[in-house]
Amino acid sequence: MIDRLIERIEALEAPIVVGLDPTLEMIPERLKQGDSLEAIAGALTKFNREIIDAVHDLVPAVKPQIAMYERYGIEGLQAYVATAEYAKSKGLLVIGDIKRGDISSTAAAYAAHIGGTQVGRQTLFPWAEDAVTLNPYLGGDSVTPFLDVCAAQEKGIFLLVKTSNPGSGDLQDLRLESGKLVYEHVADLVSGWGEGLVGARGYSKVGAVVGATFPEQGRALRARMPHTFFLVPGYGAQGGSGKDLRGFFDANGLGCIVNSSRGITAAWKKNERFGENNVGAAAREAVIAMKNDLREAIS
Amino acid sequence: MIDRLIERIEALEAPIVVGLDPTLEMIPERLKQGDSLEAIAGALTKFNREIIDAVHDLVPAVKPQIAMYERYGIEGLQAYVATAEYAKSKGLLVIGDIKRGDISSTAAAYAAHIGGTQVGRQTLFPWAEDAVTLNPYLGGDSVTPFLDVCAAQEKGIFLLVKTSNPGSGDLQDLRLESGKLVYEHVADLVSGWGEGLVGARGYSKVGAVVGATFPEQGRALRARMPHTFFLVPGYGAQGGSGKDLRGFFDANGLGCIVNSSRGITAAWKKNERFGENNVGAAAREAVIAMKNDLREAIS
Repeated sequence: MIDRLIERIEALEAPIVVGLDPTLEMIPERLKQGDSLEAIAGALTKFNREIIDAVHDLVPAVKPQIAMYERYGIEGLQAYVATAEYAKSKGLLVIGDIKRGDISSTAAAYAAHIGGTQVGRQTLFPWAEDAVTLNPYLGGDSVTPFLDVCAAQEKGIFLLVKTSNPGSGDLQDLRLESGKLVYEHVADLVSGWGEGLVGARGYSKVGAVVGATFPEQGRALRARMPHTFFLVPGYGAQGGSGKDLRGFFDANGLGCIVNSSRGITAAWKKNERFGENNVGAAAREAVIAMKNDLREAIS
Repeated sequence: MIDRLIERIEALEAPIVVGLDPTLEMIPERLKQGDSLEAIAGALTKFNREIIDAVHDLVPAVKPQIAMYERYGIEGLQAYVATAEYAKSKGLLVIGDIKRGDISSTAAAYAAHIGGTQVGRQTLFPWAEDAVTLNPYLGGDSVTPFLDVCAAQEKGIFLLVKTSNPGSGDLQDLRLESGKLVYEHVADLVSGWGEGLVGARGYSKVGAVVGATFPEQGRALRARMPHTFFLVPGYGAQGGSGKDLRGFFDANGLGCIVNSSRGITAAWKKNERFGENNVGAAAREAVIAMKNDLREAIS
């Protein structure tokens, strides 16, 4: 998964993942069909299809945030799966932003997200993701089942290291007796977990989530984790910009993929040139603008 | 939620929550109907109903572990919801073991698990839980939307503090420069988050997950967090026993609810007196044995 991701980033010159985190506010009225969970799920799926149709030739991956679907129950999650499957059918990699984490036997069940699930003699893939995000608070045995999947299949994981939100400091920024900060210790654990899973391009299938909102920490982590690919949230709506991201990339202009959600998917609402019939055109323009902005970080 | 939980624990003399974490291995052949996700989901639901029918008059709550359903995709999660709804219909409280955690706007979406979701003018509750478990790694703003729900509704949350698995030490047991261990710092955060939400019985709607496998730490946390109710995994199959739990209870024999999953739901497989037609009878006997074992901890 990681080698293919890097290859696609290079081919498209776009270290960009489009976050598919739709809210009702960003969905045009013409796609809405009523006030039921089923109708809302239908609107989420249709909206995502328009975004995917508009950007699939520009970016390597999409990242649906499962919470935005889970809030609408079973019907919402059907839209999540339909979105992931549609994105795959368009050649996109799918990074499921699920942030799961649990003790070993339970983690093995969650690992079905990327590893599939045994049903009789078949392995089914009910979630259709190529990679997922994970939470490290439960420690190594909560990650092992995912490492096993990554070893056996072309799949990947991204562990939370330093998240983009203001509250991330409550726990992640505490200083340990050893002198390390908590997130630095987690970074070292993540590097270690990924050691045996480094691909042809020098990056591991075990990546890290590092928020764009903390440029200094991002730069330091880039140096600390030379074989760990970064998934970078917090660009755009959360405040990070291209120049803040300079330190997140390696000397070859690789090493991270930057997420933008609302900045792309709700772009049609932000400029009066667009209207509710131009969801895709606005998204496409926003991706191209982001690509240009990120050139500042790479060059 | 917390006052009702305590009242039910007292009435039943059972600080016990039955973990509904079914695997195919523990489900009798007679309940299986084939090799499809739908057939498996049907078997999970039927199995859980037999357990619930057998124990609903003995215990205050059940705790379905969502990973065991999520592994079977949408169909699996339909079994999760059907289980939660059936348990509620039998008067049980439902603690969803979901261990979610994300940045603020996303956390607000996850909060639909207990707070419900706005659909037109209605608030729907697609997940049917009374309380859920949460992961604290993302800090305070990831918890705030859940605190808002707890303030407005009779719902609860349990934050991971010290988990029951061997790997819990990788991060949770690190010593901070301040002298505290990471999980102690998290414990203090959790106490603080719960301060405004203490019920009539002196316990907050904001509880903590503290593993039975660490008796010394449990005792120390009990003293450290006098208003925080504990959800205690790791009893039985994971190694904890009644006498290990003495320190988890307060002077009134309250303050925690102990989970057992396989020890109850797979009891029919562990004793040849039982067979696949005695799933419920075996579960009932296991609950009664656990109740007696826990008396040692309380008296």
